Amino acid sequence: MNQITIIGLGHIGGSFAKDIRERGIAGKLVGVEANESHASQALELGLVDQVMPLNEALADADLILLTIPVDAMLQVLPQILDLVKPGQTVMDAGSTKEALILAVREHPMRSRYVASHPMAGRENSGPGAAISGLFEGKCSVICNREGSAPDAVDTVIDLYEALGMRMVELEAHEHDLHAAYVSHISHISSFALALTVLAKEKDEKRIFQLASGGFDSTVRLAKSSPEMWVPIFRQNRDNVLDVLDEHINVLSRFRSLLIKKDFNTFHELIDQANHIRKILK
Amino acid sequence: MNQITIIGLGHIGGSFAKDIRERGIAGKLVGVEANESHASQALELGLVDQVMPLNEALADADLILLTIPVDAMLQVLPQILDLVKPGQTVMDAGSTKEALILAVREHPMRSRYVASHPMAGRENSGPGAAISGLFEGKCSVICNREGSAPDAVDTVIDLYEALGMRMVELEAHEHDLHAAYVSHISHISSFALALTVLAKEKDEKRIFQLASGGFDSTVRLAKSSPEMWVPIFRQNRDNVLDVLDEHINVLSRFRSLLIKKDFNTFHELIDQANHIRKILK
Repeated sequence: MNQITIIGLGHIGGSFAKDIRERGIAGKLVGVEANESHASQALELGLVDQVMPLNEALADADLILLTIPVDAMLQVLPQILDLVKPGQTVMDAGSTKEALILAVREHPMRSRYVASHPMAGRENSGPGAAISGLFEGKCSVICNREGSAPDAVDTVIDLYEALGMRMVELEAHEHDLHAAYVSHISHISSFALALTVLAKEKDEKRIFQLASGGFDSTVRLAKSSPEMWVPIFRQNRDNVLDVLDEHINVLSRFRSLLIKKDFNTFHELIDQANHIRKILK
Repeated sequence: MNQITIIGLGHIGGSFAKDIRERGIAGKLVGVEANESHASQALELGLVDQVMPLNEALADADLILLTIPVDAMLQVLPQILDLVKPGQTVMDAGSTKEALILAVREHPMRSRYVASHPMAGRENSGPGAAISGLFEGKCSVICNREGSAPDAVDTVIDLYEALGMRMVELEAHEHDLHAAYVSHISHISSFALALTVLAKEKDEKRIFQLASGGFDSTVRLAKSSPEMWVPIFRQNRDNVLDVLDEHINVLSRFRSLLIKKDFNTFHELIDQANHIRKILK
């Protein structure tokens, strides 16, 4: 490709930029970034060749990659489609899909847009958190491909496969449901665990010293930014509420078993939880 | 040292054995292991030079390391102290300390025992899960050192420091409280999260495909064995219940904010949770 334009040069956009450059996928990389200090940082790091205003950045792009928080996407994606010409492809990498697809359902250029969600990302934010090889070996989900032009879908799949990703296809509603189970609830659990321990454990030095007992693992995601995650929880509220209810029920069951000192049932539940070992390596 | 005897050749005991051998800390490594297949596996892996019955294994040991589940420790530690001679040192690596210290409080050889808890360990079990360098850079807690002979404490600290650990001292009750906050609740949270997702997500292939969205991180501990963890929850029940109550409260607060669509407060709570970033690198 001659030019790829990345809108949003944070952890995800920046990591796309690194991989695209290292693998020689595009002749030119252009960025759009509202945060001025992020924009200059991205240029210093060499993530993109130029940072431009949206209109100019779109003009010569073969592929336009949208990597901003999912609430901002609802505003920006229709604006991009207003400007897009036939032959250009637009993709996003948001963690929720239904609201965004609905927002452009009637747009005359809808078919140039491909909805996707690469299941990759770390807890750090900003262009400084961009890392090479982030996507390698992970899955990327394409949603509602019947709404997109076949050549646009091919362009997006080619990019993901060049980055080493395996492809999965899901209907948007189904995606959001699975994402609530397998990603969003983990973040809420982690935020809650961090708050629990911060509230209970006034001695921060102790947390630091003893965190290798498991806390560091379960609480890693609690470093994730509210700017990215609150819009996700807002858009996927009903699914997240459903899974959160179930999670609170399971924890309450453990609580009740402790109160009753029913350690046999406690043992059985852990045995069942261990079943996850067969699914996750 | 001439001989170190390790009682329990699982993940922790086996990892001690590997490091002790690689760093040339003991001339001879002897194991005690009730599970016959674990015993032969440990010999095949070269973790120890010999596996012996308890009595014989203790006879010539300079240091005796107890790495079995904490309920079994309550039975075995007094038996060991019955057999121990002056000059020998006994240490354990259990995740709860108060019950064990209480169990040998009146034992005439109490001073040969040093209570400790190295804050290290993975979710896998058995001698096959032994790994080198497990303890490097982590903290180890020594409890109630005033009950132990100074030379015994020195022997134990020397071992931990040779393994690259930093030392922390805590009173046993205080240790168990901190361990509930910083380790035990993380395990309950992780077991519960695994059960929640297994209950909600019938399609195991989807879990596998999408787990890199955060689930793999929060659920890693859910692979931990009930044989090790149920005795910990039993011994530390009151502290764990207290922290679990608080954790359910925090999750219920998130739930209530979602129901009320109060995303501003949701944002503030995540900001507070992000504070953990300043404590954990």
